[in-house]
Amino acid sequence: MRETTGMALLSPGGVWAPFTFGRRDLRPDDIAVRVTWCGVCHTDLHAAQGLAEGAPPLVPGHEFVGEVAAVGTDVTAFRVGDPVAVGGIVDSCGVCAACRAGEEVFCAEYPAETYGGGTHGGYAREYVLRASFAYPLPAGLDPAGAAPLMCAGISTFAPLRHWGVGPGQRVGVVGLGGLGHLAVKFATALGAAVTVFTTSPGKEEAARELGAAGVVPSTSPEAMAEQAGRFDFILDTVPVKHDPTPYLRALRIDGTLCMLGIPDRYEPEPLAMAFGRKRLTASAGGGRARTREMLAFAARHGITADVEKVPAREVGTALDRLARNDVRWRFVLDLTDLG
Amino acid sequence: MRETTGMALLSPGGVWAPFTFGRRDLRPDDIAVRVTWCGVCHTDLHAAQGLAEGAPPLVPGHEFVGEVAAVGTDVTAFRVGDPVAVGGIVDSCGVCAACRAGEEVFCAEYPAETYGGGTHGGYAREYVLRASFAYPLPAGLDPAGAAPLMCAGISTFAPLRHWGVGPGQRVGVVGLGGLGHLAVKFATALGAAVTVFTTSPGKEEAARELGAAGVVPSTSPEAMAEQAGRFDFILDTVPVKHDPTPYLRALRIDGTLCMLGIPDRYEPEPLAMAFGRKRLTASAGGGRARTREMLAFAARHGITADVEKVPAREVGTALDRLARNDVRWRFVLDLTDLG
Repeated sequence: MRETTGMALLSPGGVWAPFTFGRRDLRPDDIAVRVTWCGVCHTDLHAAQGLAEGAPPLVPGHEFVGEVAAVGTDVTAFRVGDPVAVGGIVDSCGVCAACRAGEEVFCAEYPAETYGGGTHGGYAREYVLRASFAYPLPAGLDPAGAAPLMCAGISTFAPLRHWGVGPGQRVGVVGLGGLGHLAVKFATALGAAVTVFTTSPGKEEAARELGAAGVVPSTSPEAMAEQAGRFDFILDTVPVKHDPTPYLRALRIDGTLCMLGIPDRYEPEPLAMAFGRKRLTASAGGGRARTREMLAFAARHGITADVEKVPAREVGTALDRLARNDVRWRFVLDLTDLG
Repeated sequence: MRETTGMALLSPGGVWAPFTFGRRDLRPDDIAVRVTWCGVCHTDLHAAQGLAEGAPPLVPGHEFVGEVAAVGTDVTAFRVGDPVAVGGIVDSCGVCAACRAGEEVFCAEYPAETYGGGTHGGYAREYVLRASFAYPLPAGLDPAGAAPLMCAGISTFAPLRHWGVGPGQRVGVVGLGGLGHLAVKFATALGAAVTVFTTSPGKEEAARELGAAGVVPSTSPEAMAEQAGRFDFILDTVPVKHDPTPYLRALRIDGTLCMLGIPDRYEPEPLAMAFGRKRLTASAGGGRARTREMLAFAARHGITADVEKVPAREVGTALDRLARNDVRWRFVLDLTDLG
């Protein structure tokens, strides 16, 4: 085993503390990554809040960058010292229809997630994975700002591209946070006119600075009613349960509302879907082909996340602030803080 | 006013009885239709069950055929005696984007429904409407069997066509009733391999006779699990609230589940949508262009509803049986029963 140190939640409701544990020894097709920056995702907050009594310590983190620290004997795509990025999945069966189509995130055997299922995540000094699930970090992208591209970035870019967002379209982005702010950047760079729907009046100026052409206070029924039938596509990035119906109404005929949050249920009103043949869908990350495309697109357009850098030891404070929606727009942990 | 007689529910929970009322005098672009056969739709049952205390008598009916009895001074498309069919909408604004696109059912001013909003429906000897919302009944289609094409038929044909159902596809039809049995006929005629999902074991043989290649008992979690990832498109015709999640799981990646029932909410599980990027949509009838296409398709393929003919005066019994799911597959009222 390779010993490393991460930041772990040791018990439910407990404290975050440095925690030393083992990574697997390198298989021939593995690399070890010396993690430098890891984004703090809402999923990490959910995992921390859901930690069960008696469960092993939780080391989350599934959007990170670093440098290759060691390579397995069969690895040719990376060399020690290469800048590298890792996202939400680190392996898949490789033979099912989804994998063969480059949609590993829908692997019939279910893809291996970066943490959970017995593996500790990227809030750590080192991570070991199959080299073919790591991505070269394009030159010119600030590493700290690039880390969130690997979850928040691909989670928004993949549906924008899949649903064909481009010039001439009106696109809505619901929620301005880690995902939402990247969705605004990507959709704008793809050529769409972007409107942000937010419950926070204070975010209007920020939304416009990110590229949004319009901002709608989603708490105002009147403001929402004015948006009826306007949008080709709406990407809803809000991570907590809410009614998607007002956004379905804001779609044009045959428009699509794509949800990224995973509450217990979505509960749209049927008439708001039937009248206008609206589509509700959901998305979960993206496969390797789309992730490579996203990194190239981000490099070409100079897109990274706007981040607040936090020493890894202060992750508890960061998660508390994230729970209060108090971050612009993504925390990234500085793992060099752990030595 | 033109006096006519229909079958009306006179008060909530009351009896159905012949009821004489007035139709508008013909406008220059109107026709009067001497109704011969009118289908009994679940919507009629809902309207009867929802009749408010003190409301005027309810005369439902929005899928009927008959003969042109009189024409307005400007009408050139019909002559007295022409066989004619009428569906769920009888007017629209004509100038909004939806109307101009032939999608009158999504009219921005909301289309005029065949009954409701002060107008009595097709459970009557005569109906008056704008001629441009009536359709010539193709020769060769049995009139009684053709009446349900105007709601049950277009409601299933429109989404099958919109979502591109055709040869080489696996299509599911949930529920075998008035809509479901026509969905099986249409999807089969469009070239798809059709599987029926039903809670009624006794309907298996009937489903195969209608053209279904497979039948799945939807009450069996094991049988449902075997269907995971198999379907390109599933049309859910069940008019009462139920969980769409098992059908989302039965879709392939990027597959579509289209709901035709209108409960208070749809409540799909988000993960069943996100994993495989499934689409949930809903549909409501079809515009005039699609309705004309449907009638031509039905005539070409010899498709009509399998009906039980009932004298109009026995509509109460028919609705009671419909509420118990006891009909194969659609009741049609014989309006000549009213004289």
